Amino acid sequence: MTEFELIHNFFTRQDVSRPDVVAGIGDDAALLQPPAGQLLAVTSDLLVSGVHFLPDVDPFTLGHKALAVNLSDLAAMGTEPAWFLLNLTLPKADARWLEPFCRGMFQLAKEHNVQLVGGDTSRGPLAIAIEAHGFVPAGKALRRSGAKAGDGIYITGTLGDAALALRSRLGGIRLSEHELGVVAERLDRPTPRVREGMALRGIAHSAIDISDGLLADLGHILKMSQVGAQIRLDKIPVSPTSRPHLRETGWDMVLASGDDYELCFTSPEKNRAALEKLAPACGFHRIGVIEAEPGLRIVDEAGKPYQPRETGHNHFA
Amino acid sequence: MTEFELIHNFFTRQDVSRPDVVAGIGDDAALLQPPAGQLLAVTSDLLVSGVHFLPDVDPFTLGHKALAVNLSDLAAMGTEPAWFLLNLTLPKADARWLEPFCRGMFQLAKEHNVQLVGGDTSRGPLAIAIEAHGFVPAGKALRRSGAKAGDGIYITGTLGDAALALRSRLGGIRLSEHELGVVAERLDRPTPRVREGMALRGIAHSAIDISDGLLADLGHILKMSQVGAQIRLDKIPVSPTSRPHLRETGWDMVLASGDDYELCFTSPEKNRAALEKLAPACGFHRIGVIEAEPGLRIVDEAGKPYQPRETGHNHFA
Repeated sequence: MTEFELIHNFFTRQDVSRPDVVAGIGDDAALLQPPAGQLLAVTSDLLVSGVHFLPDVDPFTLGHKALAVNLSDLAAMGTEPAWFLLNLTLPKADARWLEPFCRGMFQLAKEHNVQLVGGDTSRGPLAIAIEAHGFVPAGKALRRSGAKAGDGIYITGTLGDAALALRSRLGGIRLSEHELGVVAERLDRPTPRVREGMALRGIAHSAIDISDGLLADLGHILKMSQVGAQIRLDKIPVSPTSRPHLRETGWDMVLASGDDYELCFTSPEKNRAALEKLAPACGFHRIGVIEAEPGLRIVDEAGKPYQPRETGHNHFA
Repeated sequence: MTEFELIHNFFTRQDVSRPDVVAGIGDDAALLQPPAGQLLAVTSDLLVSGVHFLPDVDPFTLGHKALAVNLSDLAAMGTEPAWFLLNLTLPKADARWLEPFCRGMFQLAKEHNVQLVGGDTSRGPLAIAIEAHGFVPAGKALRRSGAKAGDGIYITGTLGDAALALRSRLGGIRLSEHELGVVAERLDRPTPRVREGMALRGIAHSAIDISDGLLADLGHILKMSQVGAQIRLDKIPVSPTSRPHLRETGWDMVLASGDDYELCFTSPEKNRAALEKLAPACGFHRIGVIEAEPGLRIVDEAGKPYQPRETGHNHFA
């Protein structure tokens, strides 16, 4: 199979066909029509074999995840996703790998009505770089820099499941088959909180998606907003599957592990009623408060300070 | 050095600061303001170590080239470049490598007033995926599909220098130091024909950039436009440096090798005067004519058919 046949066979089979795509795959560049009066949000995430995923990962889940992590970034800005490009390096043009990879990717793309409009492919070590585009009305984007002292700090969904699944796969912890099934789904097929991010426009002051761990990512909000925070360990939402394993793993698994792709956002007290009205399926949990004093203070149920050992993920560590 | 320090140190040092970048590097996504009434052109190209460049390549030239190949795609659409994202996988966060890489990239970026607005970095085998954005008024984009029977076929600059440099480096041909200096510059630091592409708006019927070789890339125009062509071997522009080596390399080097990044475009006879008025520094050469009959016919000076052995580059061959 030549590169061009490969592209034609797999990447043009998507179900999504948006009217704002004037020219998609097949020319030197895609031609797109951004909506008037909105800003264009653009993000890009790399997934590299052996760094971000295990080399024998199921291609279906990898296709899902590669797009999901980008949609998650768009969600964290309160953006409506629209288009994406795929850069795929793979050892050989293997149809048995590409078919499920594309199925996983396009299934999620269809769910969010995002269209693949371009990209590039090459022989090489397995790696994926997706770039996603979305829209947000000017002034409505959720920024990392908008947190204010007094804001509540919130988390969508629960944290720690993805990390628990990874530890189990690496042999560090034993889970029942049922438990592993639940948490592996969270690791392999994270749900980008796109609807939640869009719903938070005009309600949240700041937001970020948790890809490197709560401490690292909340840390970005604090730094960019020039504020501090206090969070309560026992308020951090943990799933019924992961909670029984906390004694074994410690809270660091929840605080400092990536791959959850939930949103962390801050919202002022005055918006609390509006926030509660949103009531998304994944839920919001209030875990602490933004304070004027710099630094992140973690306390337990009794108000006693908690000192984490790790603070986040460093891709060059 | 952590990933975040690395990003901060190298990728935020650019000279370009565009007013249409509402938020650049440093949030979950960049926020950009596309101009009203224009289409957004988006393209992406991968460069993988050992596939697209030799592992010991000079990082300065690699930084230039990684951006140049994307600007070349935008040029082929008649687009004005504006923004780009960089996805960089590298074995280690090495400042001695990153400094010249960024210098090469940002020097070209400054020349075309394009701003780095985001991307991602990871540890992994050396590879670069850049994604570039530009603008073009609706209806003015140069498409692969626009060629019409009777159009002249034109090439900017000259073809074959980059391929000659690569053959010399791989030991297949001997060049003098002076010759190698001239052609290596063409291989390592191709000039994206951005001004030429924009000048061809309203004049050319179709265009493509020559990244996989004239035969392959002109082939895309013919296929997308559902036409054929005849080209004259002796009309193909070859530099004074490469011409003396043609007897040794054969015409295939000129016809079927990538990396020249010149534009191939078609333009009707009625626009010939307008085209000649443009007279860009790199020059245009008319190499043939679009015909209604499908297929590409290559003839020599005497009108005798020429049959190339190779037809283009296949990244999975």
